[in-house]
Amino acid sequence: MPSKYRNFRNSVPWILLFLEVVLIILFYFLFSDNDAPVSTIYPAFQDVNHMVIFGFGFFLTFLKRYGFSSTGFNLLIIVLGVQCSVLIEDSLGLLLHKREDEDAAVSMTAVVISTGAVLGKANPVQLILMAVVEIIAFHMSRWINTTFLEVLMMHVHLFGAYFGLAVSSHFSEPSPRTEKNASTPKSDLLSMLGTLFLWVFWPSFNSVLLENNKTKAIYNTYFALAVSAVTAFVLSLLTAKDGKFRMTDIHSAVLAGGVTIGYAANIIEYPWIAMILGLLASGIAVLGSYCLQRCLHPALKIHDTSGIHFTFGLSSVLGALAQVVLLVLKEWTESPRLHYLVMIPIGAFCLTISVALITGFIIGLIVNLKLFKTTPVSKYFEDQFYWEFPHLAVGF
Amino acid sequence: MPSKYRNFRNSVPWILLFLEVVLIILFYFLFSDNDAPVSTIYPAFQDVNHMVIFGFGFFLTFLKRYGFSSTGFNLLIIVLGVQCSVLIEDSLGLLLHKREDEDAAVSMTAVVISTGAVLGKANPVQLILMAVVEIIAFHMSRWINTTFLEVLMMHVHLFGAYFGLAVSSHFSEPSPRTEKNASTPKSDLLSMLGTLFLWVFWPSFNSVLLENNKTKAIYNTYFALAVSAVTAFVLSLLTAKDGKFRMTDIHSAVLAGGVTIGYAANIIEYPWIAMILGLLASGIAVLGSYCLQRCLHPALKIHDTSGIHFTFGLSSVLGALAQVVLLVLKEWTESPRLHYLVMIPIGAFCLTISVALITGFIIGLIVNLKLFKTTPVSKYFEDQFYWEFPHLAVGF
Amino acid sequence: MPSKYRNFRNSVPWILLFLEVVLIILFYFLFSDNDAPVSTIYPAFQDVNHMVIFGFGFFLTFLKRYGFSSTGFNLLIIVLGVQCSVLIEDSLGLLLHKREDEDAAVSMTAVVISTGAVLGKANPVQLILMAVVEIIAFHMSRWINTTFLEVLMMHVHLFGAYFGLAVSSHFSEPSPRTEKNASTPKSDLLSMLGTLFLWVFWPSFNSVLLENNKTKAIYNTYFALAVSAVTAFVLSLLTAKDGKFRMTDIHSAVLAGGVTIGYAANIIEYPWIAMILGLLASGIAVLGSYCLQRCLHPALKIHDTSGIHFTFGLSSVLGALAQVVLLVLKEWTESPRLHYLVMIPIGAFCLTISVALITGFIIGLIVNLKLFKTTPVSKYFEDQFYWEFPHLAVGF
Repeated sequence: MPSKYRNFRNSVPWILLFLEVVLIILFYFLFSDNDAPVSTIYPAFQDVNHMVIFGFGFFLTFLKRYGFSSTGFNLLIIVLGVQCSVLIEDSLGLLLHKREDEDAAVSMTAVVISTGAVLGKANPVQLILMAVVEIIAFHMSRWINTTFLEVLMMHVHLFGAYFGLAVSSHFSEPSPRTEKNASTPKSDLLSMLGTLFLWVFWPSFNSVLLENNKTKAIYNTYFALAVSAVTAFVLSLLTAKDGKFRMTDIHSAVLAGGVTIGYAANIIEYPWIAMILGLLASGIAVLGSYCLQRCLHPALKIHDTSGIHFTFGLSSVLGALAQVVLLVLKEWTESPRLHYLVMIPIGAFCLTISVALITGFIIGLIVNLKLFKTTPVSKYFEDQFYWEFPHLAVGF
Repeated sequence: MPSKYRNFRNSVPWILLFLEVVLIILFYFLFSDNDAPVSTIYPAFQDVNHMVIFGFGFFLTFLKRYGFSSTGFNLLIIVLGVQCSVLIEDSLGLLLHKREDEDAAVSMTAVVISTGAVLGKANPVQLILMAVVEIIAFHMSRWINTTFLEVLMMHVHLFGAYFGLAVSSHFSEPSPRTEKNASTPKSDLLSMLGTLFLWVFWPSFNSVLLENNKTKAIYNTYFALAVSAVTAFVLSLLTAKDGKFRMTDIHSAVLAGGVTIGYAANIIEYPWIAMILGLLASGIAVLGSYCLQRCLHPALKIHDTSGIHFTFGLSSVLGALAQVVLLVLKEWTESPRLHYLVMIPIGAFCLTISVALITGFIIGLIVNLKLFKTTPVSKYFEDQFYWEFPHLAVGF
Repeated sequence: MPSKYRNFRNSVPWILLFLEVVLIILFYFLFSDNDAPVSTIYPAFQDVNHMVIFGFGFFLTFLKRYGFSSTGFNLLIIVLGVQCSVLIEDSLGLLLHKREDEDAAVSMTAVVISTGAVLGKANPVQLILMAVVEIIAFHMSRWINTTFLEVLMMHVHLFGAYFGLAVSSHFSEPSPRTEKNASTPKSDLLSMLGTLFLWVFWPSFNSVLLENNKTKAIYNTYFALAVSAVTAFVLSLLTAKDGKFRMTDIHSAVLAGGVTIGYAANIIEYPWIAMILGLLASGIAVLGSYCLQRCLHPALKIHDTSGIHFTFGLSSVLGALAQVVLLVLKEWTESPRLHYLVMIPIGAFCLTISVALITGFIIGLIVNLKLFKTTPVSKYFEDQFYWEFPHLAVGF
């Protein structure tokens, strides 16, 4: 048994090294023309980069024995994924005659969200495979949307959440008696640090995500996030047994408003609409977590470590729905008959979620083959399986 | 007894929900005109937002068992307060024909500082009431200053500190034997994280606070903060018993320079003046903490959990004084007789501090009525009174 | 013995106060001309400031009992150093008729790196002396480079690393049995927070460091950092005994790419070159740490607490080498004979490293005189030697 793990471990560096060498070679062939334009929108790229590296890295540290892996593997996945993403966008850009460099960081959000669903259960090789395939699938789905449906919306949270859920359905559930799948007050506080970091950067993120009316997008996002946070506190109390706040509800629900408004922040005219969307998003996140974890997930055998289904999945479904409703209302007020164009965002939504679920399901099957030597359930949520701990055990 | 607490807890979500619905309705009526201009100064708004959410959230985590409440309630108070603040500023803006959206985040600093004085003692209902009333009182005092005295200075730290102190004078003191009102090295380090975050953003904050000469304001603030930090280390050693640094002194005094210089950073000509102000501010913060905690506070029965009186209160009195002296000196060098205009900033200062103390005293009385079921002294500084703790107790 | 320490402690505040008063007086004489121009590049200054105060402050918190000193003394050293640095640059600027205000924060990086080498071993007086002398020596070496060799390159990491190593060679080694020189999972995680903060700000830092082509510098730095992070994970596994990642390798190697690329990020044409440099830098950092700590350092009696030799020293040697190679290749393709101008960056490199080693060696001798009452080896890496700990010891 130990030799088997050692074998697995011995393969990790070579897989990583092989991947990196392939990436460098591809960069050599693709980026060696002298006229490669360089994007000038650094502040936006920097804000998104802070969010995915620092914000998500600490957002996922809530597991008490998985802090090293949460932040470390998050960094590893992102830097690999950004390189793939830049390559793919450039190849597509050569076809489409446009390039958007900051999108490479934005599309990593999908990967980071997906890894949240299998946090503590997938080993690094599985995570790397997942990340590379997801980036390719995401860009494929996005390319179809852009080319055939002329929808520029990125659907990044939606894709990430449902891809992650589809993958996680193949992983064994942790034994319910284990206490490793829990948080400590200190790890919850570090996770709060990541959450607040994500919260304050979310308006910037949505302004990068949406093509036009960036200032409107920022303010609508801010109002949605504010109401979302208030509603998170309200519903956390209402669903709790003895009238106490639950930190996990706060973590997930304060961000739900930002996800939902990410679809329509630039077309919403008045802040009260953004505020109502924030309220609904937070409601769906907390009530979804309350109901689904009791009914749906056990039936579907999905174990979603970080609750990404409620924070990102359901919120983006609501956001996509809200976007369609707003478009319909707008067209209705202009000329009272439904235009067929309204069907296009619905088509893009269905396509994205289908690609995410199908590719996620397939990659979930593949990474659980014996070949990838999956982590035994007893070693789930355990930093010491992957990291050297020179520290005294008592100091933990 | 437990049923009474349950009753209290049951009221919190409905109060929050009611408030949020009222806010959305008010936004509906106030912000539904199509010509609502949108501010374009996002970077400034973002910097201030980072400060109040992230910086103050972690600045206040020094209590060893109150980290969840410090960061969580801080977020709740701010998002509620910003919504109120935007509404009030818009209503006043309709009167005054100008709107400044980033001011909504700036004025939240006053509320955050006030909550620091009752940190660990006030329950969420009390905090919400405090925040809403304080925002109204602050805007009232500011409106009087702007309209009648033509003083644009925001006095945000001054108002926050003395409002908070007036409120805290009504709360029972914690029993001196309790050890919950203490910090651990880990919580002190997290608080240092918040302090450093505030420290690096303070120049941006002062440049938002002051109307003109923003670059000069930034550099003067930086120099004042630098000298303030050095002086904090010096005086911490001089006032300590056995020549060791005290972390609480560092936390409070490194920021004092930024508060003091917030009054005159844009009119100071030479960096050495800013540096001397930083030195004086830090001196007042450390020596004030040393003397007042021994003499004045026990006499007045004020228990100021986070030492906001020294960090923000005394420093802003010094800043206001410095501003007047600088104005007098400037006029004196131009024409050697005292102009009556010098009296105006003094009037604005007195008005602000009076409004803060009076409204603070009244709201302190109100929130300590039986109706609001104040937290028993034995449950002060205790996260577990408000938050579910699914974690093992030993893991704390 | 205790009275001796008390004596030492009694001298610290007076030294600091004297220094601060001297600085204020110098600022009075140097900055009181009305035509002092004020730099307008605040965002760059702010980014660098975040890095040195917040990023390095937490990067150095990995020692389990030295978190207060790591963040606290880091702040103290930087604020003193920035004031000295502004003064020196202004004096040189009067000679050279130009001033660059953001450089004051950049040059502090050298001091922060040097303190990393003696982290936990030097007392505050020694740190202050080191910082002041290093700033003067660094500006001297930079002035020679700029004036006589016309090299604008700042060599800030190189100078910092070798100055620090030369100083640390004079400090006694900690006894190998001590466990204080270790980290805990929590302190490693806090250090990861600082590392990620540095990582995300590194592209901004390099764009400040390099004079022209700032956008190219940003993207090349990002790619180098990304490959550097991947390589860090690869080599950490390959050099470890039982195929587990080592957190210290990750901390040091993820940044190595950014240091190396800091020399040539603006002249590299294609991202694949930046990526290969990132790979080499990370390789040198991890393998250097593996080999040198076993062979060279024990022989030279250097104990380098934070591994700055691998993270910053070797990486910047590689970067300087890469810069020369790139320049040679460029000239060779233009006209195939070696121009004598290629010797100039080599000269600047040798000069910088010599000044760093010599001044570091001398100041190391001076601060270890009896006069400065060095910390006894038994008190190395111990916060309690410098800070009051009102907390319960068990709560640590």
